[in-house]
Amino acid sequence: MRDALVAAAFRLFLERGYEQTTVDDIVALAGVGRRSFFRYFPSKEDVVFPDHERCLADMTAFLAASDEGHEPVRRVCDAARLVLRMYAENPSFSVQRYRLTKQVPGLRAYELSVVWRYERALAEYLRGRFTGRPDGNLRADVIAAAVVAAHNNALRSWLRSDGTGDASTTVDHALGYVQSAFGTPPAAPDTPAAPAPGRPQRPGRPGGVEDPERPEDVVVVVSRRGAPLWRVVQEIETALGRG
Amino acid sequence: MRDALVAAAFRLFLERGYEQTTVDDIVALAGVGRRSFFRYFPSKEDVVFPDHERCLADMTAFLAASDEGHEPVRRVCDAARLVLRMYAENPSFSVQRYRLTKQVPGLRAYELSVVWRYERALAEYLRGRFTGRPDGNLRADVIAAAVVAAHNNALRSWLRSDGTGDASTTVDHALGYVQSAFGTPPAAPDTPAAPAPGRPQRPGRPGGVEDPERPEDVVVVVSRRGAPLWRVVQEIETALGRG
Repeated sequence: MRDALVAAAFRLFLERGYEQTTVDDIVALAGVGRRSFFRYFPSKEDVVFPDHERCLADMTAFLAASDEGHEPVRRVCDAARLVLRMYAENPSFSVQRYRLTKQVPGLRAYELSVVWRYERALAEYLRGRFTGRPDGNLRADVIAAAVVAAHNNALRSWLRSDGTGDASTTVDHALGYVQSAFGTPPAAPDTPAAPAPGRPQRPGRPGGVEDPERPEDVVVVVSRRGAPLWRVVQEIETALGRG
Repeated sequence: MRDALVAAAFRLFLERGYEQTTVDDIVALAGVGRRSFFRYFPSKEDVVFPDHERCLADMTAFLAASDEGHEPVRRVCDAARLVLRMYAENPSFSVQRYRLTKQVPGLRAYELSVVWRYERALAEYLRGRFTGRPDGNLRADVIAAAVVAAHNNALRSWLRSDGTGDASTTVDHALGYVQSAFGTPPAAPDTPAAPAPGRPQRPGRPGGVEDPERPEDVVVVVSRRGAPLWRVVQEIETALGRG
């Protein structure tokens, strides 16, 4: 029933336009009554985004199930991936909706409000994790916004390519950028990587003998004080072999 | 006339509520006709945000007047300060509007769409500046979102404090956080471009003499290889005095 209503709605939106389609048209095509429609969807706009409420609930539950062992920035990136998964479950529907949303200002406004709710869910989690840290709330808000922007940048690329290609790879890359700016890098391996040539000098060992069983665990990064932090971070990532 | 309409509208919004106030009520109180209202404002929502169009135009013009000499992240932070200035021009009006917007869902949605337009203006500028850089569009979108989130975090703090205190200081601090994550630090003025960081060695000075006028500009950070990157970054921030 719910799926049938969504399918009927989208067929009509595409055939005659969103504004020109009424709820009566949708229920007539789906062969159900108006009350059935409103049992599932509070308004015509909601039928365009049928899964966001579930996804928001999933995200909230996912974040609530976190513990202190989860690195916070990585955790919100993982939470954002739940949204991607929802889109990737049904590529052709997602692409249709993307085109529709671009055309209808009312739907764009609706979508912005949904995006805002995701962002607040991430920010609230981070605020909790950053309690007591200097600028905790500021950092939480900025990181949440950055995660959402990175996710949506990748999602839009995928939607513009008609849902072809691997959405996860694009989103992983985008979220990796945010993680490298604010949190742990995407794939921090436990194995040590070869030190970058030149600087980060590894400290000398007596006799210069390498112990293959115990990779040395100290990295030295030397930087100009005036260097922008993001450049310094890039250097460190390279030094740690996580770049 | 325009100001009188805004004043009348807000008096009624506060007295009887936003939803309960019609455009007819507003023009009756202001002593003008409906056509005068719609000459200035396309809808009742627009009278709540009378200066955003002007501010968006100012921001666009400001960004368009940039040149290659402007560090891009600092430039968008400066552009965001135009929004703050608009709010700070009239604290009591801004505080009233903040309270109203929190109460009326339709106004929150309108505000989100305005915020989105500011964010897109910043992102478009950054996309232009980052053309040809790896992940240029991604970085542009993420940084624009981070700037807007930082600005709004600070702006909301100021509004919640009833517009008391110095809004600029709060916003400068918040934007400084974004600049330290993504761009040049807040207090690195238009000095010649720093050598690439990680190339820590300052160019040799004759005789290796320290210049007492120039505080030393090299920072050495030693870290365990296994340390999470965000901890390392925190250490560096502290070392650089930006924590």
